[in-house]
Amino acid sequence: VHFSLAELAERVGGRVDGDGSLRIARVMPLEEAGPSDVSFFANRKYAAAFAATRAGAVIVGENEEAPAGRTLLRAANAYLAFARIATLFHPPREPVPEISPRAVISEGAVVDPSAEIQDLAHVGRGATIGARTILFPGVVVGDGARIGDDCVLHPNVVVRERCVVGNRCTLQPGAVLGGDGFGFAFDMEGDGSGPRHVKVPQSGIAELEDDVELGANSTVDRATLGKTIVRRGAKIDNLVQLAHNVDIGPLSLIAAQSGISGSTKVGMGVAMGGQVGMVGHLTIGDGARFGAKAGVHNDVPAGEIYSGYPAGPHRDWLRESAAIRALPALVKRVRELEKALKKLQEEA
Amino acid sequence: VHFSLAELAERVGGRVDGDGSLRIARVMPLEEAGPSDVSFFANRKYAAAFAATRAGAVIVGENEEAPAGRTLLRAANAYLAFARIATLFHPPREPVPEISPRAVISEGAVVDPSAEIQDLAHVGRGATIGARTILFPGVVVGDGARIGDDCVLHPNVVVRERCVVGNRCTLQPGAVLGGDGFGFAFDMEGDGSGPRHVKVPQSGIAELEDDVELGANSTVDRATLGKTIVRRGAKIDNLVQLAHNVDIGPLSLIAAQSGISGSTKVGMGVAMGGQVGMVGHLTIGDGARFGAKAGVHNDVPAGEIYSGYPAGPHRDWLRESAAIRALPALVKRVRELEKALKKLQEEA
Amino acid sequence: VHFSLAELAERVGGRVDGDGSLRIARVMPLEEAGPSDVSFFANRKYAAAFAATRAGAVIVGENEEAPAGRTLLRAANAYLAFARIATLFHPPREPVPEISPRAVISEGAVVDPSAEIQDLAHVGRGATIGARTILFPGVVVGDGARIGDDCVLHPNVVVRERCVVGNRCTLQPGAVLGGDGFGFAFDMEGDGSGPRHVKVPQSGIAELEDDVELGANSTVDRATLGKTIVRRGAKIDNLVQLAHNVDIGPLSLIAAQSGISGSTKVGMGVAMGGQVGMVGHLTIGDGARFGAKAGVHNDVPAGEIYSGYPAGPHRDWLRESAAIRALPALVKRVRELEKALKKLQEEA
Repeated sequence: VHFSLAELAERVGGRVDGDGSLRIARVMPLEEAGPSDVSFFANRKYAAAFAATRAGAVIVGENEEAPAGRTLLRAANAYLAFARIATLFHPPREPVPEISPRAVISEGAVVDPSAEIQDLAHVGRGATIGARTILFPGVVVGDGARIGDDCVLHPNVVVRERCVVGNRCTLQPGAVLGGDGFGFAFDMEGDGSGPRHVKVPQSGIAELEDDVELGANSTVDRATLGKTIVRRGAKIDNLVQLAHNVDIGPLSLIAAQSGISGSTKVGMGVAMGGQVGMVGHLTIGDGARFGAKAGVHNDVPAGEIYSGYPAGPHRDWLRESAAIRALPALVKRVRELEKALKKLQEEA
Repeated sequence: VHFSLAELAERVGGRVDGDGSLRIARVMPLEEAGPSDVSFFANRKYAAAFAATRAGAVIVGENEEAPAGRTLLRAANAYLAFARIATLFHPPREPVPEISPRAVISEGAVVDPSAEIQDLAHVGRGATIGARTILFPGVVVGDGARIGDDCVLHPNVVVRERCVVGNRCTLQPGAVLGGDGFGFAFDMEGDGSGPRHVKVPQSGIAELEDDVELGANSTVDRATLGKTIVRRGAKIDNLVQLAHNVDIGPLSLIAAQSGISGSTKVGMGVAMGGQVGMVGHLTIGDGARFGAKAGVHNDVPAGEIYSGYPAGPHRDWLRESAAIRALPALVKRVRELEKALKKLQEEA
Repeated sequence: VHFSLAELAERVGGRVDGDGSLRIARVMPLEEAGPSDVSFFANRKYAAAFAATRAGAVIVGENEEAPAGRTLLRAANAYLAFARIATLFHPPREPVPEISPRAVISEGAVVDPSAEIQDLAHVGRGATIGARTILFPGVVVGDGARIGDDCVLHPNVVVRERCVVGNRCTLQPGAVLGGDGFGFAFDMEGDGSGPRHVKVPQSGIAELEDDVELGANSTVDRATLGKTIVRRGAKIDNLVQLAHNVDIGPLSLIAAQSGISGSTKVGMGVAMGGQVGMVGHLTIGDGARFGAKAGVHNDVPAGEIYSGYPAGPHRDWLRESAAIRALPALVKRVRELEKALKKLQEEA
């Protein structure tokens, strides 16, 4: 596939600074790009690579400064323009309508004829697989589970019984939807055999609405009762844990290794850095944002930015972190104050 | 299945406040329950839902306050009563004694005739599978591994060679028992080819005793020598890491994404919140408890509650966290003290 | 297999304190070893077990103190000697050159005749599997992926399309190489259907160079463009997340549950404790070391030791942690200073 730079600009609503007739063959990083490649620049940390690149053209923001003579594709949202152009060169894999003879389709399962079920994938009893959905090898779809249209379930994904996946969802390798929630009631007597933990049946389900992505080896537990839900357009990174009855709002973004405890309700468009943790039964307002490693113990209002452990407003955390760094010096100042005061007292 | 409310109360040693003849068809959350459902209330956060529920009956504690006229099932341990009643309505899946022709049973493996080995499960050479145990698709049981009776190994669980699983254990999807421990000896010379890390053979095993649950995508490493062990009735949540030679005491509870480093010995009935980390070679006393995200660098005595990073007694952590929040103000106060003192000194 | 103690000492360049003719049958932990076993002692925490062991011989450092009469194998690097001796008793499993008839080798794949492809493993179109490499059940190697010589891919490992694994690499169960990086551009308009996240194609690859180990259920994302790379001899523990375009230097060690965000470049011989987190686009110098749970927000120079959250030099962190513990007392001291000063002021 080749596109002229002008054509690319038109497709993304951008404009060309330089020669629009330039033929573009690939999208490449600044360091590796050559004269027929388009590259991308947005992070000032890579200014040197931008200056040195041999890329034929570079996608940048509307007002980004650039070295003189550089051919540019300018766009209001440069990252979005980059995403769209990269998609032109790397369109998603088209499904090949076929059920491998080495796949297992159980009794009563309904697989859309346009779906692609690869070798060693397993579809449980009464499960449904939607149009153009791809199941890679090792995928296990449990009994009665429903997978929508245009989904991709990468190798070794597990969707347990009765769980639901909407349309246009992507599950990265090893992701698990619908494992049992972690619920045990302590039984001191244990029917005479001593104390034990009695399992609380996790009879609910887990559901991904449309356009959700679930990262590699992430786990979304099924609900105790009702459902655990990740709503429309939310994106979940790798190794994330969503506990039973969690509710993740539409368009939220949760970075890797974050964990949300049971029944916490996260609003719309919430963004979390990596390794964030939230205790259970919280309510997180729309558009709230969380710094990496934040440990959240309380409800957070809409629009707030929180950081730290225990988490508080980001600005406070910055001030507190700075104050902690100055703390050994502060201890010294207090000691000197005490000495000086004592001297004054003695003199008085 | 239907039960009268009185029958349910009798089964769990509770008592009915209201009409015991009420027929109960389902267990449902407060928000979704209808007149023939029983629901559950224990967390004050959900008082509004309790007040508004249309549930026919609600399971509550012995002395829980409730809106007038509400039909209640009162029990000393409400959560335990709920667990048992939910189990009546949602009994665990019965095994169907059968080995799928699409499963692989290797030479010398012994599978109990009452076990259920589903499609695409793999049982290694000389491995044993106990009575009524269920292996879901994609499960891999390594050579010589032993799985007890009444276990459930969910899809894509891996139990590596020679590892041992007791009776009545549940392994959620993707859990890994017996991966190699992380042990390397640094070799500066590397036989003349430069520095390298030499792998320390991890020739021990990993063992789960009876009644253990292991969460989705959790990893329990095999021991360098001897064994890594999770003892009777301990429950491990998702994405937890137990390193080589760790020893988890009976009835301990470890919440999601916690990690225990090599050779640490955790006592009986220890409880950890999510994302707790422990360094290696520690001894954690019986009944100790850890707040979410605690970072534990030292031995902890029995019965203590620890939080923070580095972790200390929970009460201290609360005081320290409050003091940190007040720290910017404290800095200001010290500055003012210095000014005032200077003025006094000048006057003196 | 049996070795005389003298023979073992010779193989590892050590020397015997005691009877070198002793026949050694096994390597065992101090607590379990008997008269024909060799054990290992290095950590002072286990001095009591060392004193009490019934081991025939114990591997110790050159100058380690030992109870009188104890037979010792002394070596300059005791842990390395132990690793080598344990390898003599527990050599790595030899591959059995065979492709299971229950494995799937796709069109155009090239499998070296000396490789061992076990049941239910899947090799994609045009993929290559090197000499003596072992694929366990449930392994999925994507289309066009390349796996080198002498590798072990444990059960349910996934290597996605076009990714590359060098020679002598070990991938523990459930590890995922080449899942999509977490990249989305926010599109406020969404073609008229409202806001949405547009996926940025992750068209690069992930590569492990030679001698890399990847832990159970760890995830290494493929690059947006170019490649994510783990360089020669680096060792990655379980449940670690390496994001797109991360570059891990040779011989680095990353302990369990650590996470490195996108495009961060980690130098040679860097060591991280468990649950470390790093934000994206950082540069970490050679030989830097990180305490468990460090949260790293800035570049770190070569050779530094960092701890804390936000991470700083380890020594500062120790001082700050101590100061925090003394903070409630400091607050009290400041209050008393204020009182005393006020009194002085009133007197003046």
